[in-house]
Amino acid sequence: MNPALKSAAVLIVLNAAAACTPAASAARDPLPSWNDTAPKKAILSFVDRVTRPGSPDFVPVPARIATFDNDGTLWVEKPLPAELFFALDRVKALAPQHPEWTATEPFASVLRGDLPGVERSGKKGMLEIVAATHAGMTSAEFNGTVHEWVASARNPATERLFTQMVYQPMLELLAYLRANGFKTFIVSGGGVEFMRAFSERVYGVPPEQVIGSEGKLEFQLRDGKPVLVKLAAVQLIDDKGGKPVGIQNHIGRRPIAAFGNSDGDLEMLQWSAASEGASFQLLVHHDDAKRAFAYDRDDKLARLDVAWDVAVLRHWTVVSMKNDWATIFPAARFPAAR
Amino acid sequence: MNPALKSAAVLIVLNAAAACTPAASAARDPLPSWNDTAPKKAILSFVDRVTRPGSPDFVPVPARIATFDNDGTLWVEKPLPAELFFALDRVKALAPQHPEWTATEPFASVLRGDLPGVERSGKKGMLEIVAATHAGMTSAEFNGTVHEWVASARNPATERLFTQMVYQPMLELLAYLRANGFKTFIVSGGGVEFMRAFSERVYGVPPEQVIGSEGKLEFQLRDGKPVLVKLAAVQLIDDKGGKPVGIQNHIGRRPIAAFGNSDGDLEMLQWSAASEGASFQLLVHHDDAKRAFAYDRDDKLARLDVAWDVAVLRHWTVVSMKNDWATIFPAARFPAAR
Repeated sequence: MNPALKSAAVLIVLNAAAACTPAASAARDPLPSWNDTAPKKAILSFVDRVTRPGSPDFVPVPARIATFDNDGTLWVEKPLPAELFFALDRVKALAPQHPEWTATEPFASVLRGDLPGVERSGKKGMLEIVAATHAGMTSAEFNGTVHEWVASARNPATERLFTQMVYQPMLELLAYLRANGFKTFIVSGGGVEFMRAFSERVYGVPPEQVIGSEGKLEFQLRDGKPVLVKLAAVQLIDDKGGKPVGIQNHIGRRPIAAFGNSDGDLEMLQWSAASEGASFQLLVHHDDAKRAFAYDRDDKLARLDVAWDVAVLRHWTVVSMKNDWATIFPAARFPAAR
Repeated sequence: MNPALKSAAVLIVLNAAAACTPAASAARDPLPSWNDTAPKKAILSFVDRVTRPGSPDFVPVPARIATFDNDGTLWVEKPLPAELFFALDRVKALAPQHPEWTATEPFASVLRGDLPGVERSGKKGMLEIVAATHAGMTSAEFNGTVHEWVASARNPATERLFTQMVYQPMLELLAYLRANGFKTFIVSGGGVEFMRAFSERVYGVPPEQVIGSEGKLEFQLRDGKPVLVKLAAVQLIDDKGGKPVGIQNHIGRRPIAAFGNSDGDLEMLQWSAASEGASFQLLVHHDDAKRAFAYDRDDKLARLDVAWDVAVLRHWTVVSMKNDWATIFPAARFPAAR
């Protein structure tokens, strides 16, 4: 069991126990990796207000829906989101069957190992890469490939497993909300079938609570055996206005708490903020170049610009990773050697 | 509280208690509305095999996914599915704004009150009616309209509320599976936003566990307020091969138990039957003209033909409503006056 998992597991057990014994809960800090600054106070206050019987803001358990973006909110998305590295590895593996890729962007940049070139192709290029490398496989084949990749793939900037580069404060927050009757969902621009390969193990979020971008699937019988084949067409881009759409299609209730880190999350936070009762919105601001990465308004893939302005205007919570998080990753060292 | 709800609530309470005291559970019949015939025995045996620790077919709780069709499986779909009656009422309400409808099928039949004419337009006609009457509303407006309609709308054949025309044996089955650690989902060709207006109250299935046909939604800001607008385009037809697709998109796990009543459910049952471990498939056969309705191979909207043959061949369970169900509806009388 890796340290992230161990911490999460311990937290889950502690929180489950705490749920049965409120007195013990008060004595223990449910968010030890958060400094005692405004964001932590805002989270604790919100959870108290919506869960305390008799509170004017009380929300019944079934309506306690919390949605989390993934890349940059629950785990690192630099130098590129993990799914892109997965797709790049798939491009390399499939290149012999696609000689035309050496002269076609964004594939040519991938094959040259030119990451800035890949990044310059923007979200459109990323989608082309994902479509070209995911299509034609069955869901089961794809799932197997992702499982295998996730078990050993490492972030090139830190040489740590991608699944170790999750934010410890957010693991604590997920567990804390669940211990208080919340159902936690991931709502991410990432591919839904990619995230489901590790969401339960890493975040404690079961596959049916993961919402993401979806390619079209087709049911087929192959030798009498039913399969679902991934087509090269998009069913849903779960980003920006697509996030409330994905939430409505999948959950059918409005989240009373929403967590993101970029302009791609703005509409999800707006949708949550328009709840009839009390609600909570939070943005993670990547300002910690020393312990992690620093980026915001000018970032090509994960710009935090308009959403930041709206957050300030609407008094949403903005987390400074540098100032508000005591610990960033499950293991104390960063960057760590193998 | 209507009788269906009351029975369901009592069952849920009883089952919750039973889950804590296995000895009491053994003494009480969890499926009292089922006769002691083969289907009931098959259900009890399957649940025992997948839940008993040490059983070679044991399935861990998170993988205990059960999917249920709605129309004809959980509630009555004759003389037409309830959602069609809802849509017909909407056609009549919207007709003054659509003078062309008096000369366009299937709308002309609706306005003439010619139900067989509506039925002759088939699934294509039904979809046109649904698209024309649902599009342009926000999700919130639509939800309000459905709630209001469901509270008072009655099946013209029986004059009972549609929500009272649910199958008591299936309510018991839903509660029994949940008491045994199953997560129960609805997977229906019906509109997802229509079903969610009553699924929790009537079936105990929360909105996030309802999968259905989906129209496209668009996120918009209206006077600064975020809304989701229903467009006249289809996102998913959750019928036939669309059912495994909807299951994969929403749940990401294969159901180990699947329940349906028509050829539209065949692919869902095939998908479930191809599980690696033990699994269970059941079809409800409508052969009880006296207490309900009788129809099968020749029915236009809910044909049970190929799926029936496959069920016999694969030894899936086929329920004869006439022989296998002691009670059909929550109240003993049928048809009942107001």
